[in-house]
Formats: sequence, structure tokens, C-alpha cells
Amino acid sequence: MYGSLFADILGRVRVKRPLVHHITNYVTVNDCANITLCAGGSPVMADAIEEVREMAAVSGALVLNIGTLNPSLVESMIAAGTAANSVKIPVILDPVGAGATRLRTASARQLLDELDIAIVKGNAGEIGVLSGVGGAMKGVDSEGLTGDPVRIAQEFAAREGITVVISGETDIVTDGTRTLLVENGDPLMGIVCGTGCMASSVIGTFAAVCDDPVLASAGALAAFGIAGERAAEKYGRPGAFKVALFDELAALGLRELEQSARVKEV
Amino acid sequence: MYGSLFADILGRVRVKRPLVHHITNYVTVNDCANITLCAGGSPVMADAIEEVREMAAVSGALVLNIGTLNPSLVESMIAAGTAANSVKIPVILDPVGAGATRLRTASARQLLDELDIAIVKGNAGEIGVLSGVGGAMKGVDSEGLTGDPVRIAQEFAAREGITVVISGETDIVTDGTRTLLVENGDPLMGIVCGTGCMASSVIGTFAAVCDDPVLASAGALAAFGIAGERAAEKYGRPGAFKVALFDELAALGLRELEQSARVKEV
Amino acid sequence: MYGSLFADILGRVRVKRPLVHHITNYVTVNDCANITLCAGGSPVMADAIEEVREMAAVSGALVLNIGTLNPSLVESMIAAGTAANSVKIPVILDPVGAGATRLRTASARQLLDELDIAIVKGNAGEIGVLSGVGGAMKGVDSEGLTGDPVRIAQEFAAREGITVVISGETDIVTDGTRTLLVENGDPLMGIVCGTGCMASSVIGTFAAVCDDPVLASAGALAAFGIAGERAAEKYGRPGAFKVALFDELAALGLRELEQSARVKEV
Repeated sequence: MYGSLFADILGRVRVKRPLVHHITNYVTVNDCANITLCAGGSPVMADAIEEVREMAAVSGALVLNIGTLNPSLVESMIAAGTAANSVKIPVILDPVGAGATRLRTASARQLLDELDIAIVKGNAGEIGVLSGVGGAMKGVDSEGLTGDPVRIAQEFAAREGITVVISGETDIVTDGTRTLLVENGDPLMGIVCGTGCMASSVIGTFAAVCDDPVLASAGALAAFGIAGERAAEKYGRPGAFKVALFDELAALGLRELEQSARVKEV
Repeated sequence: MYGSLFADILGRVRVKRPLVHHITNYVTVNDCANITLCAGGSPVMADAIEEVREMAAVSGALVLNIGTLNPSLVESMIAAGTAANSVKIPVILDPVGAGATRLRTASARQLLDELDIAIVKGNAGEIGVLSGVGGAMKGVDSEGLTGDPVRIAQEFAAREGITVVISGETDIVTDGTRTLLVENGDPLMGIVCGTGCMASSVIGTFAAVCDDPVLASAGALAAFGIAGERAAEKYGRPGAFKVALFDELAALGLRELEQSARVKEV
Repeated sequence: MYGSLFADILGRVRVKRPLVHHITNYVTVNDCANITLCAGGSPVMADAIEEVREMAAVSGALVLNIGTLNPSLVESMIAAGTAANSVKIPVILDPVGAGATRLRTASARQLLDELDIAIVKGNAGEIGVLSGVGGAMKGVDSEGLTGDPVRIAQEFAAREGITVVISGETDIVTDGTRTLLVENGDPLMGIVCGTGCMASSVIGTFAAVCDDPVLASAGALAAFGIAGERAAEKYGRPGAFKVALFDELAALGLRELEQSARVKEV
């Protein structure tokens, strides 16, 4: 059943080609742009405070990624997010490295507090830190959180009134009430820089055409994960795998998404 | 005839390896550097106001790309452009997203007004907006312009005293008097992020060794377009296609450029 | 003998997966992150003055690369470097383009003066300029230095009390007393943007687990050079070669490093 819902979303992405405004880091920004194109969206990257409100207001979704943040970038995120909220497009937050430094933790917290975030997507450590239960980070990589990740995500989502995604071998997607587990993906995705950021871009692309943030997130993660599985069938090393990851998402058919999505509700 | 003129330019590029100074966006900057190398030039990216005059003054061309602009970057562009003008090297402007936000439109306009730009290269929407006839943008992608693009480019070029390039399925290159249409290229170039920026880098590389901006632009677009055609013959998906795009430009022989260029004067 | 010492270092990298903090340029930053992963390290890029001390203090090494510098980035480098010095992790400096502009020369000089740099790695022109003997630069590429590079590196190293690496067809690694020449590598590495920056990242990754900066540098250059040789055996063009460069480093076995390292002491 979920497979067919996901395929519907991907079909809408490819017809509408939604504009997905990113304020993101300079490390993986090119990958985020290209994966958005491969999903079927139209990426735009703009971070100047003078223009972000205008760009967000004409976009279908806004992705905020704090991978290489600084205070003036956070100001632009607040401005863009406020504009996005006022035109009611979804805002997706990827709190890269929350927990690794106080600036990252505080900035992610500020964005959650000052904006109406639709979806926050982090690894276990980041979500552990932001939810308050505690999480461990090594740079921008997770070293785990304290407790049961499903329950922590659910409680965090319910308390904040948002959809929470914890990426990992099994991705957890929950709005506090409904919880989906997505099992698509391949371990190779963990040794290519930027796959986490790319996943957030695909979620933003799906959310731009789907009002249900749980479905949009799970569908995006299933699609991206299937692309990863197929790329890994062909290439076992990170460079060639990464090239194929783009290609497999671009080539993913609706029926293939429907049939290969591995998702369950818990 | 044009094919042989283009081959001459490419031959000079490969002998001189001109230094091409870029002030550009952080999304596609790596692609711009690598495509400049593949064309035969030597890229350098530097944007600090403290050093751009010095870098421009020793370069063969200056490429200004407003893909991720902000007011202080525009200041650096003005400083670098002024230095480039004083040593009489060509300045190429890629007004990415002009029309999408007021900042982009105003910044592109300011660069055209304050600098002696040799070549402005945009998509139809961007050139429509800058020429004043009106153009439609969706983020940084064109949704077309109002009227006949060839005439609009010609009038814009004549009025500004510059060479105008409108990229598209057929590229238009004109200085208002002479107009060339370049038909090389492949639709796959449209679904890879950065091919527009890369085209501007190749134009800058050719213009660094050729005093005729119409020939330099058309030759660069023909060479880049042929590389795209050859890459598309081998790969139908964006990731592998993009890798091959670099390789085909690097491997493009002078005689192949001469024979495969599809250009006509109108 | 050196081969086996290098293999030991690579083995430790893969067990410890050291966090390597980069403050680097926006042109090749993605390549630096991915090559660090392929070597076996864990990259983190962070440049905000508000967080760099904290990030450096938990890292295994700090790589400072001035490829797209500006005065506020240099301030962040000083702050991060001071923190790195106080926790005694090695600081690696890649003085990209020193000699090309006064800002670059002065900034590299400032970093050498104010920080306890463990390893400075540049091309011949950059090291020529910084050592004071004189070097010639064309943008960020070397056009050579005045005199015997081995002796210049040795004297510069002895005077500064650091390890000096001059990259080139044969890499020179010296602390003024002990001098190693590394002959691994392939000319294709010279026509791909970012291989110099990537080499510095691999050096940082090795130095994070090895107290001997000469061995760490030479081992890193041997490993990276072997990856380049193997990639060049498979692909003769820059795009495909670059993809394979990542893959070959990721796949490099300890015994292969031991057997294929071509290094000699002079």
C-alpha cells in the first residue's frame, strides 16, 4: 500500500518539477542540487538575506541544512523560513552536526523554536541531542543516542508538533502518532560524503508536492534507498557508487518504487 | 569555415593554457574549474576583495557568475572587473537567476553598467529580463522570454555594445551585427546541474586567447556541445553523462571540432 | 622498510577512523571530504569562528587550506590552529596560491608565524615563495622555484622547525634532517582540479594517527600516489580517472601499499 502512495508522490514530482529552495552547506551543495534534479525537482540555492524571502516565497519547499553554518547564514535561514511559513510551503531542517558544537546545537534549536518546521531529519546522535535525551556525535557522524530511537523520535515529534526522521540502517519516520520504518538503502551510502544531505533534498522535493510529511519523508527515503541498493548492485566502491546513485534515482520508475519500497508501520 | 576558426582557437588555448579567473557560485565551482582544465585553460577561483584586482590583472579572462551572490561578492566582482578592464582582458558575465529575485536582477544590471563586459551569457529568461523585453524564470531556470530571441539578443547587444549569448537548444551568439547559431549539444545537458556555468567557463577560456568575442563564444559552445553529444552517445543518465562530458571535452581534437561544429550565420 | 611503516599507519587510520577537521576552500571541499573517507578518516568541515576551537579540540588533525581565503577565514584558521596546538594535534597547512597574490603570501606567512604548524605542503612555487628563495606561480599552479628544491625544502624545514612537503612528479618530504622522496603518482593527477588539496587531506588523516610527520606525509603521498597510478591504468581521461582515484584509495590494501610504495631516503 505504501509503495503505491510513494509512487503517486514521485509521479507528481515529475509532472510538477517543484522548485526546492536550499540554504545549505558548501561541502555537499552540488550533490544536493543534482539529486534534486534526479528526483524530478528543480533546485535553487540562494542564501543572501537580501533575496531569500523572495526565493522561498516562489518555491515548493525550503531545505535548511546547517552543515557549514555561521550566524549570518542562520539569519538567512530564519528569514527564508518565515517567508516559507507565510506561504505555507514545508520547511525541512537537516541539523548537521547538532551536538558536535554549541553553535550547531543552539542554531538547530533556534530554527526549531522560531520557525514552523515541517520535518526535521537527522542521524541518531543529532536527534538524540535535539530531543534532549542525549546523543553522541563524532564530527557530523552519529555515535548513537540514549534509549529507544523509535520512542525518542515519537516523543520528540509529538512534543514539537513536527515530523521527525532518524536516518540509519532502518530509517524512522514519525509524527508522533503514525510511525513508518523504511528499510531501503545500502551501507555504501554511509561512506560517501553527502548522502545524508541528499536524502534531505529528496525529502524536500517530495514534500513540495505532498501535504502529508510522513508519507513524503518515507517515500523519499524509500526512493533514495532503492537507488542506493541498485547502485550498490553495480558498484562496490564509493566513487563509482556515487555516480550510479544519481543515475539510479533519475531512472527509477514509479512501478519500481511501488514494488521495491520496503516500509512498515509500527 | 567556422569549424576551422574554432579549431584555431582551441589550438591556441591548449598552447597558451590561459589563466581564467572566476568569481563564481559555490554550487558549481568545482565543475567550472574542471571544465576549464578540460578545455585546456588554467582555472583560478578567488573572491576576496583584498586579492581579486591582483588576480584579475595577471589572468587571461575573468568570468563573473552570480549563481550564489551577495552584496560583498558583487563588490569583489566590480573590483576584479575594473582591474580586468584596465588590463584589457575580456570579462564574461553569467547572470544566473536574473529575474528570479530583485537582488539578482539589480546586481546583473549593476555589473553591466559599471564594467566593460565583453560577453553576457544567459538563458532566455535571464536575457529577456536584462534586455528589458521581459523574461520568465523559475529559480535559475528559464521559462522563456517575450518575443523573438534572435532579435532581442541582437538589439540588446547593439544597445550595450557587448556580445550576447542566449543558451538553449540552439545557442544564439551576437554582437548586434553578426549573429551565429550553434546547434551542438544534447538535452541531457539540461538535467545536469552546472552545465550553464560550465559553458561560461569554456567561453571565458576561449575568449582569453581570441579577440573576437562572437567567435570565441560560438567556438566554446560548439566544443562544449560536441562534448555533450559524444557523452550522450555513451551514457543516457545524468551522473555518468556528466563524468563523460568532462572526458569528451578533454579528448576533443582540433579536427573533430572543425568537422563536428554545427554553426550558421543568420 | 618504508612500505611496511606506511602500511602500519594506514592500518591505524582504518581502525581509529580519525576525525580530520578542515578549514578549506569551497572549490575542492567535497573532494577533500570524500578522499578523507576513502583513506579511512572521518572528515568534518567547519569554519565559523564561533565553533572552530571546539571542533578542532575533538579532532585528530587540523587541515588548513587557503584555496579561497579571506581575512575572516584566516581568523578562523588562527583560532582553530591555536586550539589544535593546545591539544597537541597536528596542523597541516596547504598554502594554495602563496605567491600569486599578496593576501595569499601574507596569510600563509601569518599562519606559519602564529601557529605551531606540523606540516606545510605546497607545490614548488608556493614553497619557493614561502621559504624566501623565490618561486613563480600562475594562479594556483607552480611555475617552479629558484634553486635545488630538496635543499630549499630542507633549509626551510630546519629554519621553521616543521616538516616541509613539496609536491610534484617526485614528492619531497623533509624535516630538515631526514628527507624522503616519494615517486608514486601519475601525471593525470595534474589535470584534475583538487588533487593537491586531496593530498593534504590524506596527509592530515595519516598524521592524525602517527606522531612522525615525515613518515605520515610520505606514507599518505605514497598511498594517494598508488591510487593515482591504479586509476590511470584503467582510465586515461580526467573525469573517469577522478572517480577511480577515490575508488582505488578506498580499496588500497595494506600489503599493496607496502609493496607498491616507491620511496627513498636521500
